[in-house]
Amino acid sequence: MASQAEVAVMGRAVELAARGLGTTSPNPVVGCVILDASGAVVGEGFHAYAGGPHAEIVALAQAGERARGGTVVVTLEPCNHHGQTGPCSTALVNAGVARVVIAVTDPTTSAAGGAERLRRAGVEVEVGVREAEVEAGNIAWLTAVRRRRPFLIWKYAATLDGRSAAADGTSMWITSEAARMDVHSHRSTADAVLVGVGTVLADNPQLTARNLRDGSLAIRQPLRVVVDSEGRTPADARIRDQAAPTWVATAAELGSDERGQVNLADLLSRLYERDVRAALLEGGPRLAGAFLAAGLVDQVVGYLAPRLLGAGSAALIDAGVHTVADAIELEFTDITRVGPDLRFTAVPRNVKG
Amino acid sequence: MASQAEVAVMGRAVELAARGLGTTSPNPVVGCVILDASGAVVGEGFHAYAGGPHAEIVALAQAGERARGGTVVVTLEPCNHHGQTGPCSTALVNAGVARVVIAVTDPTTSAAGGAERLRRAGVEVEVGVREAEVEAGNIAWLTAVRRRRPFLIWKYAATLDGRSAAADGTSMWITSEAARMDVHSHRSTADAVLVGVGTVLADNPQLTARNLRDGSLAIRQPLRVVVDSEGRTPADARIRDQAAPTWVATAAELGSDERGQVNLADLLSRLYERDVRAALLEGGPRLAGAFLAAGLVDQVVGYLAPRLLGAGSAALIDAGVHTVADAIELEFTDITRVGPDLRFTAVPRNVKG
Ligand SMILES: NC(=O)c1ccc[n+]([C@@H]2O[C@H](COP(=O)([O-])OP(=O)(O)OC[C@H]3O[C@@H](n4cnc5c(N)ncnc54)[C@H](OP(=O)(O)O)[C@@H]3O)[C@@H](O)[C@H]2O)c1
Ligand SMILES: NC(=O)c1ccc[n+]([C@@H]2O[C@H](COP(=O)([O-])OP(=O)(O)OC[C@H]3O[C@@H](n4cnc5c(N)ncnc54)[C@H](OP(=O)(O)O)[C@@H]3O)[C@@H](O)[C@H]2O)c1
Ligand SMILES: [Zn+2]
Ligand SMILES: [Zn+2]
Repeated sequence: MASQAEVAVMGRAVELAARGLGTTSPNPVVGCVILDASGAVVGEGFHAYAGGPHAEIVALAQAGERARGGTVVVTLEPCNHHGQTGPCSTALVNAGVARVVIAVTDPTTSAAGGAERLRRAGVEVEVGVREAEVEAGNIAWLTAVRRRRPFLIWKYAATLDGRSAAADGTSMWITSEAARMDVHSHRSTADAVLVGVGTVLADNPQLTARNLRDGSLAIRQPLRVVVDSEGRTPADARIRDQAAPTWVATAAELGSDERGQVNLADLLSRLYERDVRAALLEGGPRLAGAFLAAGLVDQVVGYLAPRLLGAGSAALIDAGVHTVADAIELEFTDITRVGPDLRFTAVPRNVKG
Repeated sequence: MASQAEVAVMGRAVELAARGLGTTSPNPVVGCVILDASGAVVGEGFHAYAGGPHAEIVALAQAGERARGGTVVVTLEPCNHHGQTGPCSTALVNAGVARVVIAVTDPTTSAAGGAERLRRAGVEVEVGVREAEVEAGNIAWLTAVRRRRPFLIWKYAATLDGRSAAADGTSMWITSEAARMDVHSHRSTADAVLVGVGTVLADNPQLTARNLRDGSLAIRQPLRVVVDSEGRTPADARIRDQAAPTWVATAAELGSDERGQVNLADLLSRLYERDVRAALLEGGPRLAGAFLAAGLVDQVVGYLAPRLLGAGSAALIDAGVHTVADAIELEFTDITRVGPDLRFTAVPRNVKG
């Protein structure tokens, strides 16, 4: 059993982990706190970016000799592989720690086994402290690793009557500048953004993460992916510019489904292999419908503008639903105002209700 | 200038007024507090139902002789007409009050003039205390009286992608029982509910205010109105049952617009003449579009279910908007969860932004 003090310290480790959100991919966020034998905090660390030191190594460096006989409180099971930084399990054994308290076990086959290695070396190991909280904080990465495909977030913007364009095809701007800034900051934490070729042909978007005030590019740019069965993306499309990497994913490259279109499950597997963990599906309505129908969407983020159109393109088309009883059921996890608009976050439910 | 104490007492009068919400139509809600010469509360009252005593009369009855030389704090200008209860202005003069503090003046031509009458009798009158708050609390009645047409609330239920029915036409139930119960309680405070003949032909709704648990009817039932240019409402439609009064409003009775359909502005004038102050427009999408295009909607209440359909009827059709820049602009005034669903309230904005 973890002590009350250890449970509290895990709360601090969760905070530390969150500092890495958006910059660690394809690695998870991890936070670590080291207590000496008397229970005083002697080291803290988090994983900041892929290739950088793991949270445990940062905390050990700070603790030095004081780690000996102490307790390590860490959000994710220490790794056991010989990656760029050497296994953390070995480093902890060498530092002579007496006890390791873990929130969540590592689901990756290459890194797992750290707890086992520690136990074999005589270190006391406790697993499952604040597990739900740490799961939630790492949900994108954990889901991706468990399913071996990116955690897919469908993001859309619509009016209250569910339109994403007016009768004449105009769609700029349905939502406010505040909502669009929110999208850009979200984009800069994703590993990839996906759109259908329909959106490229209609809107010619650039799909970079930018500061909307001065137009400057974010340091981290997601991979831009066009789902384009026949390779109709124009050579001079803005999405092909030099601002960020781009992949035009065709059926020729990926294989096609029974309708001759890009096989979406294969597309996601490929993206996973390319180290994409969190992906943002930015439409349009048909590609979103196909992903939802295939059950490949993990989260929906909608920006609803307080406007009505009464005509124009629907925000979602062809999701494979014919009758109300077969609707795709979600559950709201967050509802917030963003400027004049409403942003909701929802997750698909398994149980119909 | 009203004293700080009087401003605080007006807050109490606002609370009292709110107790009448939903039962005073075609009268406004009114709250009244009487202070004696020393500033102590000696009487309180509110208007409970049309035909019942006015708030001032209730409060005066409670205060008795202690009102003499005192101050009356009342949300609405005391009436000056010889209605069912005699003018409150006269009653206040006869009671010998020294001062009357009013939030909002009475916009009705028949009842107004109370402040003037009081001043002529030597009573000190102060107008405009907590005006915005009292306006908001009486917004339906005030708007109706000023425009001489009912305050019109468009209520709809839809999925997150703006569908009000699935591809096969099924629409029961898009939203949860909690949301439907909310609608029924809302209905019982309206003076009329309106639907288009399209909805009657498609869904054959009863449109009464009921307790959804046991099916029992609310005491107060709104007038049920079908907007039906050619009188196509079937003789055995449920909306024609005996549970509540019904009006099938045809073009023959009301005159028609340039498309040969019921003239909506005339319809609202007629409803006002029939003492309707708050009306609930319950669809469908086409009738709502026509009312919105005509600028006759004062408030929008939407129930959004966390579900996606990707096909089926849109929640709003033909609102006269062709391009995004001409969208009907609203502003959220409330966003609340009702069971698993989201309910928003919004009001049209004049200024585009
Ligand atoms: N409001 C918003 O949030 C938002 C976001 C984006 C776009 N939009 C609007 O959406 C409109 C474009 O919509 P759209 O439906 O034409 O475009 P889309 O959803 O972006 O692209 C659809 C196309 O994707 C391709 N595709 C490839 N594999 C597919 C698969 N397995 N399943 C389905 N599609 C596949 C298909 O073309 P191929 O078969 O040729 O590959 C299909 O026609 C534009 O007006 C744009 O403004 C709105
Ligand atoms: N989710 C919801 O909140 C909700 C609520 C209600 C209905 N619905 C759905 O809506 C569907 C019915 O939609 P709908 O559009 O056919 O019906 P609707 O909007 O209820 O009725 C439209 C009809 O109203 C009549 N009308 C009379 N005067 C009009 C005027 N000035 N402007 C416009 N229309 C006028 C017209 O028929 P005439 O010219 O013959 O008079 C018109 O066809 C059903 O599937 C129902 O389930 C959904
Ligand atoms: Zn490690
Ligand atoms: Zn009166």
